[in-house]
Amino acid sequence: MSNEICGVFAPLTTPFEGEDLALDRLRENMRRYRKSPLSGYFVLGSNGESKSLSETEKLQVLEVVLEEKSEGQIVMAGAGYESTRLTLHFARQVARMGVDFVSLLTPSYFKKRLTDEALIGYFSHVADALEVPVLIYNAPGFTGVNLTPRVVEALARHPNIVGMKDSSPEGPAKYLAVCPEEFSVLSGTINTLLAGLTLGAVGGVVSLADAFPGSCCRLYERFLAGDLDGARRLHRILFRLNQAVSGRFGVAGVKYAMEKGGFYGGPPRQPLLPLTEEEKREIDRAVAEAGLA
Amino acid sequence: MSNEICGVFAPLTTPFEGEDLALDRLRENMRRYRKSPLSGYFVLGSNGESKSLSETEKLQVLEVVLEEKSEGQIVMAGAGYESTRLTLHFARQVARMGVDFVSLLTPSYFKKRLTDEALIGYFSHVADALEVPVLIYNAPGFTGVNLTPRVVEALARHPNIVGMKDSSPEGPAKYLAVCPEEFSVLSGTINTLLAGLTLGAVGGVVSLADAFPGSCCRLYERFLAGDLDGARRLHRILFRLNQAVSGRFGVAGVKYAMEKGGFYGGPPRQPLLPLTEEEKREIDRAVAEAGLA
Amino acid sequence: MSNEICGVFAPLTTPFEGEDLALDRLRENMRRYRKSPLSGYFVLGSNGESKSLSETEKLQVLEVVLEEKSEGQIVMAGAGYESTRLTLHFARQVARMGVDFVSLLTPSYFKKRLTDEALIGYFSHVADALEVPVLIYNAPGFTGVNLTPRVVEALARHPNIVGMKDSSPEGPAKYLAVCPEEFSVLSGTINTLLAGLTLGAVGGVVSLADAFPGSCCRLYERFLAGDLDGARRLHRILFRLNQAVSGRFGVAGVKYAMEKGGFYGGPPRQPLLPLTEEEKREIDRAVAEAGLA
Amino acid sequence: MSNEICGVFAPLTTPFEGEDLALDRLRENMRRYRKSPLSGYFVLGSNGESKSLSETEKLQVLEVVLEEKSEGQIVMAGAGYESTRLTLHFARQVARMGVDFVSLLTPSYFKKRLTDEALIGYFSHVADALEVPVLIYNAPGFTGVNLTPRVVEALARHPNIVGMKDSSPEGPAKYLAVCPEEFSVLSGTINTLLAGLTLGAVGGVVSLADAFPGSCCRLYERFLAGDLDGARRLHRILFRLNQAVSGRFGVAGVKYAMEKGGFYGGPPRQPLLPLTEEEKREIDRAVAEAGLA
Repeated sequence: MSNEICGVFAPLTTPFEGEDLALDRLRENMRRYRKSPLSGYFVLGSNGESKSLSETEKLQVLEVVLEEKSEGQIVMAGAGYESTRLTLHFARQVARMGVDFVSLLTPSYFKKRLTDEALIGYFSHVADALEVPVLIYNAPGFTGVNLTPRVVEALARHPNIVGMKDSSPEGPAKYLAVCPEEFSVLSGTINTLLAGLTLGAVGGVVSLADAFPGSCCRLYERFLAGDLDGARRLHRILFRLNQAVSGRFGVAGVKYAMEKGGFYGGPPRQPLLPLTEEEKREIDRAVAEAGLA
Repeated sequence: MSNEICGVFAPLTTPFEGEDLALDRLRENMRRYRKSPLSGYFVLGSNGESKSLSETEKLQVLEVVLEEKSEGQIVMAGAGYESTRLTLHFARQVARMGVDFVSLLTPSYFKKRLTDEALIGYFSHVADALEVPVLIYNAPGFTGVNLTPRVVEALARHPNIVGMKDSSPEGPAKYLAVCPEEFSVLSGTINTLLAGLTLGAVGGVVSLADAFPGSCCRLYERFLAGDLDGARRLHRILFRLNQAVSGRFGVAGVKYAMEKGGFYGGPPRQPLLPLTEEEKREIDRAVAEAGLA
Repeated sequence: MSNEICGVFAPLTTPFEGEDLALDRLRENMRRYRKSPLSGYFVLGSNGESKSLSETEKLQVLEVVLEEKSEGQIVMAGAGYESTRLTLHFARQVARMGVDFVSLLTPSYFKKRLTDEALIGYFSHVADALEVPVLIYNAPGFTGVNLTPRVVEALARHPNIVGMKDSSPEGPAKYLAVCPEEFSVLSGTINTLLAGLTLGAVGGVVSLADAFPGSCCRLYERFLAGDLDGARRLHRILFRLNQAVSGRFGVAGVKYAMEKGGFYGGPPRQPLLPLTEEEKREIDRAVAEAGLA
Repeated sequence: MSNEICGVFAPLTTPFEGEDLALDRLRENMRRYRKSPLSGYFVLGSNGESKSLSETEKLQVLEVVLEEKSEGQIVMAGAGYESTRLTLHFARQVARMGVDFVSLLTPSYFKKRLTDEALIGYFSHVADALEVPVLIYNAPGFTGVNLTPRVVEALARHPNIVGMKDSSPEGPAKYLAVCPEEFSVLSGTINTLLAGLTLGAVGGVVSLADAFPGSCCRLYERFLAGDLDGARRLHRILFRLNQAVSGRFGVAGVKYAMEKGGFYGGPPRQPLLPLTEEEKREIDRAVAEAGLA
């Protein structure tokens, strides 16, 4: 177990064959990922189609990841449900399995009444009850809830809330400006990775790393090495590619791009539709343009 | 079992004591509701805090409702999850218990890729696999997804999709204009009930009926009797009350209003917060103004 | 001059030939409108492309309308600018020309700071300074500002603010519930006309009346005559047609539909684009389906 | 005249005394600004309350700025109206006065029909007709229109469209990824200035520079000097300050902050409200916290 967060993390997809969970495929993917420079994994998140899985399936997925990751790699596992009670029930199971961090997506269904106070209460109560450190996960594109800086500022003071993953389109600047330096902020997309690093983020959880872990890690390394020009060149390439993959097609796009990168992608679970042949050609072109084909 | 839908339905709340399910309280409420003129119940919907319940809890709630309803009353049960597979798994259990209709909330998490085609596929696949008739449930205020008329027009042709509950702020006019008359459209709030009836809706599922079933049914009866002036007067009173209850405070407000109406309300489940004393006084005043205290 | 508002009003379009104002075409249109059962006109509104006209052009348009309308027809003229000062300057000119009502669109550019208090101040100050009675115009689809019921409730008490035109997608129900009966509320679209009437609105300003004034007035007459079934049948036809015209294509669609109805439509002013041939065929089909071709 | 854009620009506010234009106050402000390291000015933009001014007032403001600026400072002037015709009429006047760049805000009133094609047409037609180089101005917080990268990519190829000012909350990354390097992109807020520079922007037009030009320019200089840590420290301070000033109170806040910085601020024009005493104290505190009082 580790509690230092930095670098590039892959938000693992969940492989299906037809509609069935394909754990062997996940195992194969992991055996390649473990040799990459990835700092670790974000399991059971949006790209993991967590909301489409049963509780049992979620635990099976997590088990494989924990078994197959390399020793130094970190595992963050999504454990958020809509109610504090359901979240606690699931987060405790996940914690017992030995993840490094539990990630809690904002609840969102009752958004009209998820006031700052209600959200602070939610994250605090769950973090109080867990031993494993907690990460906040802000994903307004999926949830329709965008945490205010005030909420994150308050939660960053909780001894067991150690960081956050931010997938808002405007990126984590608003949180970085109000949180102490030891609070670890991760960009939730390659779009905001380089800007985030400039402003004090420690890394990113970026779906493009599911398909092209090496290139994404290289952007991070260029930045660390002080080569801002090199980082910017890579950013430009990966930003454009990401628009054509996740930006345009979501999980189905990420899964198809994974196949271009040599991994098993497969279809998303219904109601999400797999890509049409024409849509695949769009991604083919974008991958070729990026020089990654 | 019945398959004629019309009139006013109560979207039942789920009683808690502290954070625990309080099935006895639900049973008490039902024993009063069964004597009311309500046409039936919408169980496991937004006001039922379905998203905050475990699968087991959901089935327990449904069981009590089916046991305690009066003979002629209809039961619609929410069964939607984010994936077709999870929905089918749960909908089949619900169907076996003997509900009259299964209601399917739109999936919403992957909203960027929930195209018309994906949504038509979702509802069609589930409706194909079930024997019990299916209702569509559109609730953009909770989900961020607002079905296009095109989707509903297509689904209305499915032999096992018999109607919809629409809680969009603009009301069901856009669906009524494109669906055949035998497709049963219900307003999902008292706000759009009278307008909906004027345009061809068959009734409503309105949270104010959880607290004041008699008054809500009276509005429907006035309309049926051709007394548009009387219906409008009642609408005005109930619309204003509803703004102060559900409009302002969501489920927590509905639960407190239920206590004013003589039912058990209790707290919402966390992270939702119960009303403060000051908030309760707001509802007290609104109920008094409506002449219902 | 008249100060009773009821019935159906046409939100006049501004005819162009190329990019130039075509006042003769407007005059021709007016000579047909004046023989219709329209209660009057809404000039210099959204469908009048008021925002695309110079001040001089606006006054020229208004002059023609005032000259050509029939005696009993009412003229409402849009006079809102972004600042109180600009609005006052223009509204006074318009008032001097003899309009029956001045309509004030909500300011919207500085929306973040257009608090309820700022908006109440705006309408009150302008209404204080004018002798001609004032109408509020709420058009969130254009402005991004949707007046709260609290604002309208406060303004309805102003002695010189006599009514409003509401083009919000959810319709005027929220305002009708809080305003006194003598405050005249008009639906701003055929979509909410029948529902609005049911709830207490006095009529509508509906762009479909630019093309088919007779049919729109008939819907109103059916309602007045107590023939709710007949009104509903017409509503359904006109609602669908409106989706295909203004709903889909805005002013350019309304202008093309006017040609189907025997009026001069012409192109919108740039940057708005005229309809393509294919888009025109869509409207042709919709008009034929509505039985109006 | 200059056509190289880089560095920090002040989006000048328009001084009023009561509701009247106070050109002397503007002149005084300019005499201080001209001694600052500001690269130039953005006149007649959002913070200039351009939408609240008459055409005559706009030209008066611009005249003072052109007279009082220092020789090397650049002047960009806002000239956009809702129609191509009105924009051309005004832009030509502005161009004749000798501005370096004309800035065109996106039209927005008819947003439903302002397709990519319509927007490309708008900017292209105006740029075709002008000799002075054109900047695109994207300000979705005010207009509700957010240019797609596709539009900007197309317009960046126009020989007379040389750059853009982007005030979108997510910043200019999406445009920088698709435009050639010689297309000059400016962040429209201090919030995205440092991130923008990292990704290839050439500077910013930031309202905080109206009050504290020195500090804003220092951030830019730290970045240019390769001192990313120093730039980040300043960014954090200025970001927080900006949230408390423009972020919270818009133009009225900027004007009050200007007084803290030794300039004339004065009230905004109605309907915008001046700050209350309590709101002023909030800004006082934020300025003190930033070490700028």
